[in-house]
Amino acid sequence: MATVTPRTLSGFMELLPRDQLKFERMLSLLRETYSSYGFTPLDTPVIEAAEVLLAKGGGETEKQVYRFTKGDTDLALRFDLTVPLAKYVAAHYAELAFPFRRYQIGKVYRGERAQRGRFREFYQADIDIIGDGKLDVLNEAEIPAIIYDTFTRLGVKRFQIRVNNRKLLNGFYAMNGMSEKAGEIMRTVDKLDKIGPENVRQSLINDVKMLPCKAENVMDFMAVKGTNDEVIAALERYRGMDATFDEGLAELKTVVKYLADFGVPEENFAVDLTIARGLDYYTGTVYETLMLDHPEIGSVCSGGRYDNLAEYYTDRALPGVGISIGLTRFFYILSEQGLLSGEGGDAPCDALILPMTEDLSPAVAAAAELRKAGLRVQLYTEKKKFKAKMSYADRLGVPYAVFLGEDELAEGVLSVKDMRTGEQQKLSPAEAAALIRADAARRAAAALIKE
Amino acid sequence: MATVTPRTLSGFMELLPRDQLKFERMLSLLRETYSSYGFTPLDTPVIEAAEVLLAKGGGETEKQVYRFTKGDTDLALRFDLTVPLAKYVAAHYAELAFPFRRYQIGKVYRGERAQRGRFREFYQADIDIIGDGKLDVLNEAEIPAIIYDTFTRLGVKRFQIRVNNRKLLNGFYAMNGMSEKAGEIMRTVDKLDKIGPENVRQSLINDVKMLPCKAENVMDFMAVKGTNDEVIAALERYRGMDATFDEGLAELKTVVKYLADFGVPEENFAVDLTIARGLDYYTGTVYETLMLDHPEIGSVCSGGRYDNLAEYYTDRALPGVGISIGLTRFFYILSEQGLLSGEGGDAPCDALILPMTEDLSPAVAAAAELRKAGLRVQLYTEKKKFKAKMSYADRLGVPYAVFLGEDELAEGVLSVKDMRTGEQQKLSPAEAAALIRADAARRAAAALIKE
Repeated sequence: MATVTPRTLSGFMELLPRDQLKFERMLSLLRETYSSYGFTPLDTPVIEAAEVLLAKGGGETEKQVYRFTKGDTDLALRFDLTVPLAKYVAAHYAELAFPFRRYQIGKVYRGERAQRGRFREFYQADIDIIGDGKLDVLNEAEIPAIIYDTFTRLGVKRFQIRVNNRKLLNGFYAMNGMSEKAGEIMRTVDKLDKIGPENVRQSLINDVKMLPCKAENVMDFMAVKGTNDEVIAALERYRGMDATFDEGLAELKTVVKYLADFGVPEENFAVDLTIARGLDYYTGTVYETLMLDHPEIGSVCSGGRYDNLAEYYTDRALPGVGISIGLTRFFYILSEQGLLSGEGGDAPCDALILPMTEDLSPAVAAAAELRKAGLRVQLYTEKKKFKAKMSYADRLGVPYAVFLGEDELAEGVLSVKDMRTGEQQKLSPAEAAALIRADAARRAAAALIKE
Repeated sequence: MATVTPRTLSGFMELLPRDQLKFERMLSLLRETYSSYGFTPLDTPVIEAAEVLLAKGGGETEKQVYRFTKGDTDLALRFDLTVPLAKYVAAHYAELAFPFRRYQIGKVYRGERAQRGRFREFYQADIDIIGDGKLDVLNEAEIPAIIYDTFTRLGVKRFQIRVNNRKLLNGFYAMNGMSEKAGEIMRTVDKLDKIGPENVRQSLINDVKMLPCKAENVMDFMAVKGTNDEVIAALERYRGMDATFDEGLAELKTVVKYLADFGVPEENFAVDLTIARGLDYYTGTVYETLMLDHPEIGSVCSGGRYDNLAEYYTDRALPGVGISIGLTRFFYILSEQGLLSGEGGDAPCDALILPMTEDLSPAVAAAAELRKAGLRVQLYTEKKKFKAKMSYADRLGVPYAVFLGEDELAEGVLSVKDMRTGEQQKLSPAEAAALIRADAARRAAAALIKE
């Protein structure tokens, strides 16, 4: 009767249960973190009118968009969460209170050429803060705090939030009379990590056609490194030469000033003047986040300040600041590199009850009682041999198996077996609940990502 | 510069923040309930190969499917969560442990004619238990417990889980020699609520062309009502006439027997022989759930036992039992009828901090401290007049506004205003955290649905 081979399209992630449970834990940690900063959840359609979604038009993205007609409607699947946010804020402007802070975790679609680690359907986790006409720089200072909390909660310790300000870059290029070449320069400087400073310098001279002394200026500027105080001191030397630069410097100082109040340790933060994050969109602070022991992953959380969220939909100025995590790729890489811990619990339940009696009423009641105590409890329902039941418990990876046979019933106890240690003990239902709950709490506190 | 009117397609739900927060609460209550029974979360792609998704083919559904090509691939958007489950279980059979219990909450797509309360993109919340070859009837008994917990947690008290068994129906039709007309009879009986028993009887005689005495038999059978014990006693009268009927009766008795052990009060449960739930798919227990004060909504949670989950993908017998909630429509109706309570918290945060000082460091630090105490805290960042700040707090619907000015700083306190009562008091940060946390806990325990 089977007529079709069941398969999942390439470029679409579909996880097995134990991995899915880890992914869900990541989602839930993100939701908690974003909520703790007062971001409101948002959900927008996956399908939008093509005309609306592609209002900006052009570019590499448009080619990748899933676009099709249904009846006579031209439709497209969202390819990021920013365009839907712009649409949402412009459409519901009158009903929203500003600053409007939202998080959205959802799937987006890009018909990229399929290759390892590239996905056509993937989750993005975005937060944005949108102002009405104005938005205070304090919001730019808050973002590193949120990034810090996010990765700390996920269990990462060795990470660094790298920050720059586009006004510093634009101001610097202006004071050197290089504004016209700014795009080219930034693209070249972006290769620093890959090709090294000497090759960048040569490329600035030979490809971008800069005078050697100007290329030298760029290299000096990009080489500014050190503690936050040292970097700011170095930048102070340029002050007074360009208004935009001075504005950027003031903003950077504000961001740095509030870091300690927000609870971000200095070791998790660095000013890095080489960061630019694309050419047009960002206008102020920009962010990247690196896992220090895994620089090959690249930035795992990026974003920045922009001036016009929704210029294609409204003439209102809607400045904002936001960051995004490409969750599916992030999870895929963590998984590939063996960085995901199962300790936090990748079992579907805290305890599996294995009835050993003909009448299942006592087992059903015991499961209900443990559930009332706040536990996730599965009742094993099939009439199989003991060995098959234990093998099931093993395959699920449950922390505890709970046996209930005639002996236990007579004594009013449960036999509770820790599946990890093999230790088995007879406990009253209340004792069993307490033991399993304490273990569940330990697992919930365990890091998802191990370093 | 604005060139396109921002709009959302009709048939696509897009909620404002306060409603979205209620919807998220519903999602989170469902996740908790399903997890508490050991269901594992599952996530499958929204896009599948059309050939795979439409393996069954034909029918009304296929016309509604969003189907399109990308490159030379024929694609379709999932129109339910059952077909993707079938594909998943068949494709990953060797890697799964059976019984396989999963929940999935996700968006599905049907290009129906748009009308009020009909959605083209909507959430379904499904749970299914899949056996390998066999699946014990105890699983059919567990489903009412899960439905009961689900609606109780959502805050509904006046609801009834109605249960029937397809084997009772099939057996009854067989013993009356009406098996060939079973489909027609069931479709006619299904109109009982709408057109009343007399019209159903007439339709059985005139349209289905049944002998009056046989129509009488059907009417008698369908009229069996009462307590579980009474219904079972009435059904016992038919025992011994058809093997399928007897099997159905034994299963029904098992389901009823375990109800009390599972903690389902008898008032929330009724055997209803008129329930059939479609014609082919279900083979054992079937379920509907009615909100007793809102019968016009129809069943809000339905499902049943089936014998072959994945017959188009595999020759293995994969019997299962499952239920589904059409969440988007359910939420829409609750909202329309004013049945959603805001008490549980439709604010994006527990407290909004309004800084009254020039230097924002103390406010930033206070926000960080309250967050450490487990609260959702937003810091108001804009330099606006007091009135504008209060109006923002009002529009967000935050329970508490927290003022921090020079006076508070000097005294080492926070001024905490309950935005619902207007009451304002000066509290130490620890006292403020305790007050706000207690309130958040109260709101988290409040019912989402009011009756």
